[in-house]
Amino acid sequence: MASMYEDLMRLAIDEARGAPPHGDVPVGAVVLLGERVIASRHNERERRQDPTAHAEMLALADAAKELGSWRLAGTTLVATLEPCPMCAGALVASRVQRIVYGASDPKAGACGSLYNICADPRLNHEVDVVGGILAGETGGLLSEFFAGRREAVRGGP
Amino acid sequence: MASMYEDLMRLAIDEARGAPPHGDVPVGAVVLLGERVIASRHNERERRQDPTAHAEMLALADAAKELGSWRLAGTTLVATLEPCPMCAGALVASRVQRIVYGASDPKAGACGSLYNICADPRLNHEVDVVGGILAGETGGLLSEFFAGRREAVRGGP
Repeated sequence: MASMYEDLMRLAIDEARGAPPHGDVPVGAVVLLGERVIASRHNERERRQDPTAHAEMLALADAAKELGSWRLAGTTLVATLEPCPMCAGALVASRVQRIVYGASDPKAGACGSLYNICADPRLNHEVDVVGGILAGETGGLLSEFFAGRREAVRGGP
Repeated sequence: MASMYEDLMRLAIDEARGAPPHGDVPVGAVVLLGERVIASRHNERERRQDPTAHAEMLALADAAKELGSWRLAGTTLVATLEPCPMCAGALVASRVQRIVYGASDPKAGACGSLYNICADPRLNHEVDVVGGILAGETGGLLSEFFAGRREAVRGGP
């Protein structure tokens, strides 16, 4: 199971690498129904200047289009970073079955770090949470990106 | 101030009335910059079969397009219903200054009922929250809608 999740996380990592070329923080998200990938998106907040254009949100909207329904029952969303409150709320609203994420986000994570929105029995749906898959690699993507930006600001080494 | 918010809420109520004709729950959201309405949308989840198409999300995306920036600093979002976790998270992510809402949502509200995502000093932005504006009227819209649906299921009176 761990190795299956790692294989899926590698897809999300490949997807995340599409974000920096347009100035976006590298976060990727893949939605699966069974073993079929039905959506794969990366963060496009800067590219689109849209505050709602996180990788997870775009992937959920694409998945709904693919299935022809806003109810994404039985799907798994694999994200390189722990979802924020907006994205965790969207997972619940979409009736996603499982969220698998890589690095934790102590500053904004809503699947265990600051909030646990996916596992709240007061809401009308709960999402299974699996965190920490390839956490080093997915977190590394982010640290590299931010280190590169700091370097650019200083004018290089 | 209360009467100004009531005038704005009437705009959001008018907007919400656009949802039931396409089978959507009547929730409306209006975004203002100063006194200028820069976005006005209603819930389109059923119409678009998109789980992310809540009124607030659509209005935030439109407002960003109008301003040419994902940072909606200085804006006020007026919604007929207390935002859910997804939408409250989006308000924070968008750097909205103030959320004004009508009826509280004890089952999913994230601006005071179940969560208080807009007023969490651990997150990188806080949103001023004003709730309960024309709560009777905005709540009434929803009860009417759901009563109508129950009636339809029973085959009318």
